[in-house]
Amino acid sequence: MRIYIIAVGDELLSGRILDYNTHWVAKRLSGIGFTVVGASMVPDDKGEIVEAVRRALSKADLVIITGGLGPTPGDVTIEALAEALNQNLILNEEALRMVERRYMDLYELGHVREPGAGGERAKMALLPEGGKPVFNEVGVAPGVVVKKNGKLIVALPGVPSEMMYLLEKVIPLLEKPEAMYQSVEDFIDEGDESLVALALKEVMNELPDVFIKTYPSGFGGKVRMKVIASTKARGREDAEAKLRKAITLLKEKVAKRKAEAPS
Amino acid sequence: MRIYIIAVGDELLSGRILDYNTHWVAKRLSGIGFTVVGASMVPDDKGEIVEAVRRALSKADLVIITGGLGPTPGDVTIEALAEALNQNLILNEEALRMVERRYMDLYELGHVREPGAGGERAKMALLPEGGKPVFNEVGVAPGVVVKKNGKLIVALPGVPSEMMYLLEKVIPLLEKPEAMYQSVEDFIDEGDESLVALALKEVMNELPDVFIKTYPSGFGGKVRMKVIASTKARGREDAEAKLRKAITLLKEKVAKRKAEAPS
Repeated sequence: MRIYIIAVGDELLSGRILDYNTHWVAKRLSGIGFTVVGASMVPDDKGEIVEAVRRALSKADLVIITGGLGPTPGDVTIEALAEALNQNLILNEEALRMVERRYMDLYELGHVREPGAGGERAKMALLPEGGKPVFNEVGVAPGVVVKKNGKLIVALPGVPSEMMYLLEKVIPLLEKPEAMYQSVEDFIDEGDESLVALALKEVMNELPDVFIKTYPSGFGGKVRMKVIASTKARGREDAEAKLRKAITLLKEKVAKRKAEAPS
Repeated sequence: MRIYIIAVGDELLSGRILDYNTHWVAKRLSGIGFTVVGASMVPDDKGEIVEAVRRALSKADLVIITGGLGPTPGDVTIEALAEALNQNLILNEEALRMVERRYMDLYELGHVREPGAGGERAKMALLPEGGKPVFNEVGVAPGVVVKKNGKLIVALPGVPSEMMYLLEKVIPLLEKPEAMYQSVEDFIDEGDESLVALALKEVMNELPDVFIKTYPSGFGGKVRMKVIASTKARGREDAEAKLRKAITLLKEKVAKRKAEAPS
């Protein structure tokens, strides 16, 4: 299942707020075997969101959108989502009860002056036709899940605590991948990325189903390079032996090149 | 000048690394008056990068790409950039001297075994035809600046310290915006976003050149809402009075609605 993530919000593009949501979603879903194929950040602009959702649907099976679900005029994500899917925006009774319930809680806690889901509050109960609301016990705006042509679109609030909470409620709805990326990390005591690059090319030619990337941790002092080898496999055991072998091969090749280099 | 930011790297999409670069570039360039219109995150895949660059050029005057400039086989940003611009990838003599100079430094410091810019190292001196290298005193791979059809494309390394350093060298090359977004921040002692939303609509109708967004800081305890009002202006002074007026108006309207609401 390929995943595309869209973060919505002017405050992200102006740099006022760091978008932590995309990282969180990517890490959480990659960790259970999904592949995130891309992500984008768009302003609170209906046309831009519509375009981003359509492009995401052309690239992925699951699109996760964060931000723009609140009651203010700047929150246009759900409206844009309906347009992107060519679906009507309708008042969802289940969502309306969710909004009412949360405002009753907040009223009883003394955080708002009135209960009820009237006026601007009702906006949070508008969903694309056929969409399902997900109850938001942390904030107010329900999450929204829409199925369309075998694809799934999930819209979550932008407040990280609400987004993280609702993401966990959405994960059980997803079909778990059978084979998933397994990876092994190690270090090579060599800081010259250009020397490692040649050895890397050879290893990846010899083991075409293993993908290896190296990450220098900067020059100076103790010179090391992080190595991450990954492959797609059904089980951890199958993958691990293969990946360890690839890294050993890489280390041998790097050592050989070091020995050949003038010192 | 509209800006689009592209972050390249498998490690960003898998959630192994948080992309801090996009936030940094967005914050730095918004702070001097540019408008970031969008951002995306793509894997180390030539086709995906080509597509992202072309789309970015359709939306912005300046495209900033971070990541994928190193010597490993996974680093394909510059190759993709050349393809996106329909330009040849050629060995740039100036870039080659920069790479040589950095490897001489690193050799003298004992961080690499050989000086010189041969083998895989020469890859970092390949630039789209007409591109200009920017010397990278922090790492090795030069930044790349390309002008095409009145637009500017800047590719920077993904290592944040190198990216931040090179960004500062690129900023003086940009045409400063005459009018820039000015903003004023304040707080409203009201946590009910739905109540503020109505007042906000009225203020924005009365003052159409002022844009206001509110950010709830969560419910409970001391209930407040951050308000950011912004407008485009040549000077800080012109903007400030107008923005303060807008916020005062908003506060008055919120207070009025609070007084009307049942308590």
